[in-house]
Amino acid sequence: MDIEKSPLLTDLYQLNMMQAYLTNGLTETASFEFFVRRLPVHRHFLLAAGLEQALDFLEGLHFGEAELGYLASTGRFDRTMLDYLKALRFTGDVDAMAEGTVFFPDEPVLRITAPLPQAQLLESRLINILHFQSLIASKAARMILAAPGKPLIDFGLRRAHGAEASLMAARASYITGFAGTATVLAEQRFGIPIFGTTAHSYVQAHDDEIAAFESFARARPTNLTLLIDTYDAEAGARKVVSLAPRLKADGIHVQAVRIDSGDLIALSRRVRQILDEGGAPEIRIFASGGLDEYSLNAIISADAPIDGFGVGTSLTTSSDSPTLDCVYKLEEYAGIPRRKRSLEKQTWPGCKQVWRRYAPSGAMVADTLSLASDRQDGEPLLHPVMRNGRRLGLKPTLADIRARAAAELTSLPEALQQLKTERVYPVQVADALVALTAEVDRRIASHL
Amino acid sequence: MDIEKSPLLTDLYQLNMMQAYLTNGLTETASFEFFVRRLPVHRHFLLAAGLEQALDFLEGLHFGEAELGYLASTGRFDRTMLDYLKALRFTGDVDAMAEGTVFFPDEPVLRITAPLPQAQLLESRLINILHFQSLIASKAARMILAAPGKPLIDFGLRRAHGAEASLMAARASYITGFAGTATVLAEQRFGIPIFGTTAHSYVQAHDDEIAAFESFARARPTNLTLLIDTYDAEAGARKVVSLAPRLKADGIHVQAVRIDSGDLIALSRRVRQILDEGGAPEIRIFASGGLDEYSLNAIISADAPIDGFGVGTSLTTSSDSPTLDCVYKLEEYAGIPRRKRSLEKQTWPGCKQVWRRYAPSGAMVADTLSLASDRQDGEPLLHPVMRNGRRLGLKPTLADIRARAAAELTSLPEALQQLKTERVYPVQVADALVALTAEVDRRIASHL
Repeated sequence: MDIEKSPLLTDLYQLNMMQAYLTNGLTETASFEFFVRRLPVHRHFLLAAGLEQALDFLEGLHFGEAELGYLASTGRFDRTMLDYLKALRFTGDVDAMAEGTVFFPDEPVLRITAPLPQAQLLESRLINILHFQSLIASKAARMILAAPGKPLIDFGLRRAHGAEASLMAARASYITGFAGTATVLAEQRFGIPIFGTTAHSYVQAHDDEIAAFESFARARPTNLTLLIDTYDAEAGARKVVSLAPRLKADGIHVQAVRIDSGDLIALSRRVRQILDEGGAPEIRIFASGGLDEYSLNAIISADAPIDGFGVGTSLTTSSDSPTLDCVYKLEEYAGIPRRKRSLEKQTWPGCKQVWRRYAPSGAMVADTLSLASDRQDGEPLLHPVMRNGRRLGLKPTLADIRARAAAELTSLPEALQQLKTERVYPVQVADALVALTAEVDRRIASHL
Repeated sequence: MDIEKSPLLTDLYQLNMMQAYLTNGLTETASFEFFVRRLPVHRHFLLAAGLEQALDFLEGLHFGEAELGYLASTGRFDRTMLDYLKALRFTGDVDAMAEGTVFFPDEPVLRITAPLPQAQLLESRLINILHFQSLIASKAARMILAAPGKPLIDFGLRRAHGAEASLMAARASYITGFAGTATVLAEQRFGIPIFGTTAHSYVQAHDDEIAAFESFARARPTNLTLLIDTYDAEAGARKVVSLAPRLKADGIHVQAVRIDSGDLIALSRRVRQILDEGGAPEIRIFASGGLDEYSLNAIISADAPIDGFGVGTSLTTSSDSPTLDCVYKLEEYAGIPRRKRSLEKQTWPGCKQVWRRYAPSGAMVADTLSLASDRQDGEPLLHPVMRNGRRLGLKPTLADIRARAAAELTSLPEALQQLKTERVYPVQVADALVALTAEVDRRIASHL
């Protein structure tokens, strides 16, 4: 079975707990919630992503012959457990925030309600799926905000952490507002627009740079971008200027040049001048090479003549904050609210909901976290998305999700749209949730 | 096709360049080398890993019907290209450092020698494979050095970046010297030892913590570890002490307790005292929760009574340095050495080799980088591993690779074994390579 579909992509303790639940008859309904405990450094908000892949995983969940044979061969599990796994399908309910929704710490992004052994098994891979795409969408959002209106392209396949990360980073950045990706598989799988022309090796394989430009232009005349910095970017720009009329005579138009190294602000100005003075003001400048939201912001602030950007490693690894402190915690079992009280890792008990209030302008004002049953002012953010193991409604298109993310970023408070801010978005905890927590603590204390 | 096997997990520019190479008849032999340009912060050396997965990728490389159909449907490529892709198999040579070898910037870790269109296509995914495992092995090595002799277990599936990263982090950390992983799939796929008992949810699902301990112990009596910090770790330890004799009477032995939160040094001492005074000196203490090499070092330096560690997110994301500045660059085409001269991204031309010299004690002294044809003192680090698309010799076992990595870490200069050092390992560039570089520059200048 594919790695990404295998039910064995889980932690051993999940299977050990399942066996113990089955042995001890703990098979009643449980609710687990996925949330982030605290914001990473350099993030003032997060963006939910990965729900569609999480639902795909739930719909496809099963143990095949190979997985069952392996588990039987380990001798770790009894026949009851193996039979349970053989018959296992996800039969539970899912409530979740839509992809592209802005969220904050302690707010449940997704809730699973299912028989305890099922809900337990899902923990490791569900976190794995939701963590990564939310991480990348939250990083991509900062880049979008730093370079408003400029096309950004994901160039980060090569240093993303493995195959699935490459593909899902392309998806997460696209739904957040990137124009597309260089990753071909993202077009095949998701219909995401793809971009790309040449690497330095193309130029290096020729003895002469201008011959390389011309041979590429004639072989690949559509959306033609020439990479000009293999040896010297300004010399490369002058070659483009000398070549462009000859190509134009044959109906081939150089759309852009790409610069991938050096001081992009200074170099783009000199290259712009060379192109303009050489009679090629229509050729755009595309930049790449170690970019992140800070360098994008610096380029935009300097009003450098760069028309679009390829962003790689910093995007697909979220390199300044490569993890979210996210968890999936039991909040209710057999109708009784539960909480964990480990130091600095305490959780709010019960099935919860988040209500968001907006100003008349549409700007987000504050959220309230409470029990799902304790209706508050504002719009509820979690919605039913799966019942009895079946998706509700139509799958949103990527265009739908992009539109939502764009609207959410627009409605962020002004301060949170900056790369740096002291402003903390207010998430209020309702009285009913505080009261329930005290009640759960009294129950726990009675057993300590 | 699985994501991790798809030839479409590449950047569009690779396919665009392939088309242009085919159109223009640039199909002679090319050599590309994979190397790291500079050390990331907090790393003094790197450890090579991922070669077996790279070779698996090369052996399995092909375009299936779905991939060819998709490419044809895009209208981007001509019949010559589509036919070329349909027939494509990797027919080239690979020279590489063995997995588990210590390496430094500018040293080629792997060289591909193949017809240019083939060698070009491989770039994105080869970097993706080699980057990630080398990144994680290099991080794991720091943890091994920080906690000598203590069993370390990979707990990091959930926050690794996607499915493949989870699995390959388990592999990369195991070959570096971790005792195993919690990831079940790593046992099925690679035979890596797996570990795991319970999460907090198991305790939370019971009304009473001691009832949870007992129900779990009776259901899962083998390698029994009890997680004691769901509500209060010291109270949890006292419950274990009170429960242990009753379990022992039935032949069930508590092997260890796990603490996953709080001040692990202080808490482990108090828990150790509770266990010892409670007549359970044989119960070991296992710790987890946000650990990295620095906290491991602090725990070891304090001589805290912790017998083993679960390390998660910091390992599987290499969180302090989540990327290596690694590249795959054309060094020779059609028998002519090539180089790139972009600012701060210049490469050494030609097919290269690394020779390593050792002191009589076995400690590494210095490396020399030169042309493969320019024999130097010391042991060559790159070896032929594939010829004409076929693996040479037997695949090394994980035990072989672990043994190599352990020997390499032992032979590291003392200063480089520390978490922090000012010492830079000497990598000398031989005269022949410097001379060739000057020659290539003269050739490039003649065409500028």
